[in-house]
Amino acid sequence: MIPRYTRPDMAAIWEANNKFRIMLEVETLAAEAMEQNGTIPQGVSKALRERGNFNAARIDEIERDVKHDVIAFLTNVAEYVGEEARFMHQGMTSSDVLDTTFAVQLTQSADILLTDLDKVLAALKKRVLEHKDTICIGRSHGIHAEPTTFGVKLAGHYAAFARAKKRLQDAKKEVAVCAISGAVGTYATVPPEIESYVAEKLGLTPETVSTQVIPRDRHAMFFAVMGVIASSIENLAIEIRHLQRTEVREAEEFFSEKQKGSSAMPHKRNPILTENLTGLARMVRSAVIPAMENVALWHERDISHSSVERFIAPDTTVALDFALGRMANVIENLLVYPDRMKSNLDRMGGLVFSQRTLLALTQNGISREDAYRIVQRSAMKVWESDGKVSLRDMLEQDTDVTSKLDKSALDKIFDLSVYTKHAGTIIDRALAS
Amino acid sequence: MIPRYTRPDMAAIWEANNKFRIMLEVETLAAEAMEQNGTIPQGVSKALRERGNFNAARIDEIERDVKHDVIAFLTNVAEYVGEEARFMHQGMTSSDVLDTTFAVQLTQSADILLTDLDKVLAALKKRVLEHKDTICIGRSHGIHAEPTTFGVKLAGHYAAFARAKKRLQDAKKEVAVCAISGAVGTYATVPPEIESYVAEKLGLTPETVSTQVIPRDRHAMFFAVMGVIASSIENLAIEIRHLQRTEVREAEEFFSEKQKGSSAMPHKRNPILTENLTGLARMVRSAVIPAMENVALWHERDISHSSVERFIAPDTTVALDFALGRMANVIENLLVYPDRMKSNLDRMGGLVFSQRTLLALTQNGISREDAYRIVQRSAMKVWESDGKVSLRDMLEQDTDVTSKLDKSALDKIFDLSVYTKHAGTIIDRALAS
Amino acid sequence: MIPRYTRPDMAAIWEANNKFRIMLEVETLAAEAMEQNGTIPQGVSKALRERGNFNAARIDEIERDVKHDVIAFLTNVAEYVGEEARFMHQGMTSSDVLDTTFAVQLTQSADILLTDLDKVLAALKKRVLEHKDTICIGRSHGIHAEPTTFGVKLAGHYAAFARAKKRLQDAKKEVAVCAISGAVGTYATVPPEIESYVAEKLGLTPETVSTQVIPRDRHAMFFAVMGVIASSIENLAIEIRHLQRTEVREAEEFFSEKQKGSSAMPHKRNPILTENLTGLARMVRSAVIPAMENVALWHERDISHSSVERFIAPDTTVALDFALGRMANVIENLLVYPDRMKSNLDRMGGLVFSQRTLLALTQNGISREDAYRIVQRSAMKVWESDGKVSLRDMLEQDTDVTSKLDKSALDKIFDLSVYTKHAGTIIDRALAS
Amino acid sequence: MIPRYTRPDMAAIWEANNKFRIMLEVETLAAEAMEQNGTIPQGVSKALRERGNFNAARIDEIERDVKHDVIAFLTNVAEYVGEEARFMHQGMTSSDVLDTTFAVQLTQSADILLTDLDKVLAALKKRVLEHKDTICIGRSHGIHAEPTTFGVKLAGHYAAFARAKKRLQDAKKEVAVCAISGAVGTYATVPPEIESYVAEKLGLTPETVSTQVIPRDRHAMFFAVMGVIASSIENLAIEIRHLQRTEVREAEEFFSEKQKGSSAMPHKRNPILTENLTGLARMVRSAVIPAMENVALWHERDISHSSVERFIAPDTTVALDFALGRMANVIENLLVYPDRMKSNLDRMGGLVFSQRTLLALTQNGISREDAYRIVQRSAMKVWESDGKVSLRDMLEQDTDVTSKLDKSALDKIFDLSVYTKHAGTIIDRALAS
Repeated sequence: MIPRYTRPDMAAIWEANNKFRIMLEVETLAAEAMEQNGTIPQGVSKALRERGNFNAARIDEIERDVKHDVIAFLTNVAEYVGEEARFMHQGMTSSDVLDTTFAVQLTQSADILLTDLDKVLAALKKRVLEHKDTICIGRSHGIHAEPTTFGVKLAGHYAAFARAKKRLQDAKKEVAVCAISGAVGTYATVPPEIESYVAEKLGLTPETVSTQVIPRDRHAMFFAVMGVIASSIENLAIEIRHLQRTEVREAEEFFSEKQKGSSAMPHKRNPILTENLTGLARMVRSAVIPAMENVALWHERDISHSSVERFIAPDTTVALDFALGRMANVIENLLVYPDRMKSNLDRMGGLVFSQRTLLALTQNGISREDAYRIVQRSAMKVWESDGKVSLRDMLEQDTDVTSKLDKSALDKIFDLSVYTKHAGTIIDRALAS
Repeated sequence: MIPRYTRPDMAAIWEANNKFRIMLEVETLAAEAMEQNGTIPQGVSKALRERGNFNAARIDEIERDVKHDVIAFLTNVAEYVGEEARFMHQGMTSSDVLDTTFAVQLTQSADILLTDLDKVLAALKKRVLEHKDTICIGRSHGIHAEPTTFGVKLAGHYAAFARAKKRLQDAKKEVAVCAISGAVGTYATVPPEIESYVAEKLGLTPETVSTQVIPRDRHAMFFAVMGVIASSIENLAIEIRHLQRTEVREAEEFFSEKQKGSSAMPHKRNPILTENLTGLARMVRSAVIPAMENVALWHERDISHSSVERFIAPDTTVALDFALGRMANVIENLLVYPDRMKSNLDRMGGLVFSQRTLLALTQNGISREDAYRIVQRSAMKVWESDGKVSLRDMLEQDTDVTSKLDKSALDKIFDLSVYTKHAGTIIDRALAS
Repeated sequence: MIPRYTRPDMAAIWEANNKFRIMLEVETLAAEAMEQNGTIPQGVSKALRERGNFNAARIDEIERDVKHDVIAFLTNVAEYVGEEARFMHQGMTSSDVLDTTFAVQLTQSADILLTDLDKVLAALKKRVLEHKDTICIGRSHGIHAEPTTFGVKLAGHYAAFARAKKRLQDAKKEVAVCAISGAVGTYATVPPEIESYVAEKLGLTPETVSTQVIPRDRHAMFFAVMGVIASSIENLAIEIRHLQRTEVREAEEFFSEKQKGSSAMPHKRNPILTENLTGLARMVRSAVIPAMENVALWHERDISHSSVERFIAPDTTVALDFALGRMANVIENLLVYPDRMKSNLDRMGGLVFSQRTLLALTQNGISREDAYRIVQRSAMKVWESDGKVSLRDMLEQDTDVTSKLDKSALDKIFDLSVYTKHAGTIIDRALAS
Repeated sequence: MIPRYTRPDMAAIWEANNKFRIMLEVETLAAEAMEQNGTIPQGVSKALRERGNFNAARIDEIERDVKHDVIAFLTNVAEYVGEEARFMHQGMTSSDVLDTTFAVQLTQSADILLTDLDKVLAALKKRVLEHKDTICIGRSHGIHAEPTTFGVKLAGHYAAFARAKKRLQDAKKEVAVCAISGAVGTYATVPPEIESYVAEKLGLTPETVSTQVIPRDRHAMFFAVMGVIASSIENLAIEIRHLQRTEVREAEEFFSEKQKGSSAMPHKRNPILTENLTGLARMVRSAVIPAMENVALWHERDISHSSVERFIAPDTTVALDFALGRMANVIENLLVYPDRMKSNLDRMGGLVFSQRTLLALTQNGISREDAYRIVQRSAMKVWESDGKVSLRDMLEQDTDVTSKLDKSALDKIFDLSVYTKHAGTIIDRALAS
């Protein structure tokens, strides 16, 4: 959690106080269930509700002695609650409260990330509709291919983030589990009813088999999904970085009045937000392998996952939250230059119509191979002229072409509208996804 | 694909002939749809169905010239089909056929992996039920904790593989998509109906927005899920490796008559299968980051993902198929030693009952902290004696204990059945998952 | 940087104040060189030395406006220095000061890590010498193999950390470079002499070709080396975790008086320090791929590496520093149980002598294959008896053995000293490495 | 090893026959040393030299029975050698021959990779010298910054590959070690002299402490270095992909006569080689983490590293060899368009001189902040005009500028030669690195 890339709501989830608050709630709910069950005396949960409290600094102090975080927490809570505290946590093991608390924190962060995704989707939707018919060149391999619309381009990213949302909803379910099963998960000292009660109150599902800890394949999925989402962020970030290149300049990140692009070169407007998102994507992805390495704990559990999660849970959710927020802003405020898109499209001398010419020739009885060669010889001249010669002119000078395609046939080929006629269909499909 | 770790069915999916067969089917189906649509003459698909063929070696030869794999394929098919071939692939782009073919291959491999998972689940289920009540020590941090049953232990892994199956089913859906949308995905030269027809015939869903290629976040999810499954394999493999350690020896991989454990030490029986699975898990995981790096293709597509997928698609699915098959065998044939489990359990002098003692003391009016200290001072003596002194003896010599707990109270504490009473519940829950 | 895993000296390197202090020094040294060079008036560096100062909070405040960290810094310094400040940074670009500062920070952290490695080496050396002749069983695949000494075991780790030190020294040299070459690295506005001067004063080497930024393959090597060192830490941590297993208990992490192993089970002594080190190793390794992804910056530079480095530089060096410090303590205070090592060694009924028997038989005219079979049939009985039957007894009942090996020959075979006779050589070699 | 990305020399290193050939050599050399030592009878090594042979298919057949690769190999060799074979491998363990053989294979592949690097360096050097003074725009953030030369651009990559070579030489030394130390590495059954002899004959160094296997931190370093080299390949590949973009087109991969860029669009010339290199870089990097995970083997060794290395050793060295070979060709044949570089440079209306103007203003008594604002207001107009308005014209209309800088001062500022004056120095430094 680096302040620069941290937003307060997500950060709050990972603060010690939120963690201890949830831990206290878990203990209190467990006490309620145990009272109902008759394993502890009435009044314990009431005492916990009324006097239950904690002090993070004091917990740290105790932990330095006992070297055990949950014992330190329980000791501190007991200092507030008094007598009844000795029935708290009865038959439970540390992981019961830690893993259930972690589950709550992860679902809290998933909720923020889902809201973030909605904002990215909303920003994209707005720009998709705005630029539904804004013609621009589509590029494969960085090379002009055929025209498309800027709306369609963004619609592809919309669909990717819609998939991201679906995946995160599933991943949230994976981690939204509660485990209160006692040492090595046998329920020997805490019957399954306690777990069911606490789970229901917290909106979680009881873990199928918890072996003391919640199995880490669940968390591995959660971090893997964040890694995939980050990769979709990178994908869109790189699109924008490309569009902002000096030679392309079809779009630009919004550049505020006071902003300085370079300490040395006052003219610079750099796509620093999307470059930053490219880097953050690498960071979010970097948690995936450690999270997977955490799965193979020894026997019923070891604690090697703990230090990893202390890093990656806050760092990854915070960085992804920041990244999604930044991406929503970038899209919302993106400066789009349709004129520039049009002039880039035009500068290649109509090369983009080469495939349509090829098809028309084959439909007029020329073999695919011959048609390819015929079109390629004109196309290469246009290419080498850097667009100063036009493809249409070249084709009109080639009798292999003109013997098959007259002027009106060529008019039909050199018609941009064909590239946009399905834009509506594509966009509708994307926005419905 | 290393022969040693390759099984024929999965390997067959990735052979050139399977790929070309699917490509030919995609082209033929597309031709059928185009005939219905009237964009190509009748008879093309019939010609493809009747004479459509290919020769992998010849395709290689052509590719060396044209340096383009799909053109080489189409040229070769045309050599078989003749005249009608010029209408094949009309308006389509290479990715239409390549990505759709890849989708078919991935769903084929997902189907094999799902069957593999069923076998692992079946093997686990059998052993879970067999050892439902086989008492063994549960271990946290590699240290004896409290008793559990071997059936419960395996049930945890059953539940993990049940989750694995669910995830793989979802991941299969993610990649089971068809894209036939032409250059940069505008459908300018091939209307959406063609795609819908081919998709339906192949059991795929049309891609929402394909931008020429199927977006790689889908594949990233697929590889991420395989990485998580591999981590669950590692988890079980490490459990078995631990159980087979000389000092533990609660279970062993099956060791065949002729097998030699060591070229130097004839007495050795090594858990080499599960060690091998540990390594294979690392390999399957290693595809996850490259698959995520593949997402951020430039603009409508670049081809950087291609070399990555040529490696990871066969290598990862083949290795995971092999690993799941090996794991099913390991579990099926695992030698389990209940006597040894019992004797390991016993050797710690009853330390496993320490928590129950602690609870009983707190329930008899002693504060948790005091109870902890009382039990710990006895427990430490037992521990230091290496189990030669028993916890029960120590407790009976401690008046702080005996003043609260009489013989019958201690009898109730030192009762193993408490650790197994919920085994049935846990196992039922797992097997139903 | 998580307080729990952070030591103050390493943390101080990454604090804003240390960074700004180095930045100011770079600017001041550059000013000195420029004065000597005549490109700026005399007195600027003196002003910087005398009045040069900064305030981190104020810099943040300015950055919020200008959205550029170096401009914010320079503006703030100018507020302290006054008039002369306008000659500061002349012809330089932000990366000149940022990358050179980062180089200083990395070398500072490398120095701490090298000291940490020395402490690990010293702790290991002490225990190696102490346990030079402490016999224990060597294990391959977790299975008893042949005897070795605990000193030799640790000597292997000593050698690994000696290699770690060598690698880190090399990696430090890789990053100990200075770049002051102006925009896109042409020295157009700041001649190479400035860079040489600053480099020399800071103990750095001028970058060969800096293209505005110091190329990130250098940093990738640095993080890769930390990843390898972390893996060596994991290796030793896992050794200790294995030795501390209840059934093995040949060594234990030191357990302090007040420490509590478990909130539920008072008897537990868990190897939590080395489990923690296992997790920290995963974290240190997780920086390696992002650091490598940082290498391929666009053209002369982009800023995607920056966010990555803001995370991984502090997090990785801090975590590795903590891990090395913890490892030195663990080794220093490790409880070693030679009696237990001896009793573990003995419990396998002398199986460890199987290979020596095999060799003796082959040296007495029996083919290797036959000898293997002869020894294996006895060895398997011993194994199956769980060490209750001894290998020597079995062999003495086998006429295929006794026809070749008499009692004195068997005495010579069943002699532990053979496994320790080279311990001194091995250890001397390790300690000299 | 995918045929498409495999070159024969590197592939040959990893063929079974090469492996068995080295294994036989290790056994033969060990036999020579043992004869000299008197531990085995004279004549064994002679028999091995004269009749020693193997058959890979037969070894596979035996392995299916004994499930142990080295025993299978030894059995097969004995079938050729006869009687004397029983003294072969005496006192050695499988890893002695396997790990030493692997060391030889890795050094062989390092030698090929070093030759590959020399070819990349030679190709770069040639083009660096050719384009020493070819002016082109330098870009930061994808945005025009200041001019540089194409030779300087390439010189940066030259320096990176020179560093790569140095690192690979070091990494080769790391793995060029020999271990013949017997079970768990005690030399109990094979004295250190055997190891020294074999090591010397094979050009290797004896391992410091081998614990049966050569410690895997050495191999981790080797794979990490390949990962860094791959990242430098990616860096140069991405530079070329950028330069080849339609709008930039300052350089292009060589495009052969018969090559087809697209099945659909005949005009396309795509940077497919460098896109391919981008993907291969991801693959080479993917071996780094598994290689690091291999370090923490259990106790004296387990075999989890083996399956990993069966994949990554051939795949990574073969892919990197192919990638370096391809990169050398790409550079050798790269089409460079100096005219296009010049016209790209010119199209920004002289914005590149903004920094020099800024400096000149500060040197004429204007504060840095004021100068920045003055230059920026002109620069922004030029930028917004898309280069149709020139910076010089704008500045000449600004009295804040003209009051400080007269025509001759501006002439001096707007002089391209300043950006190339140090090109020679930079290039000389790079080529000497």
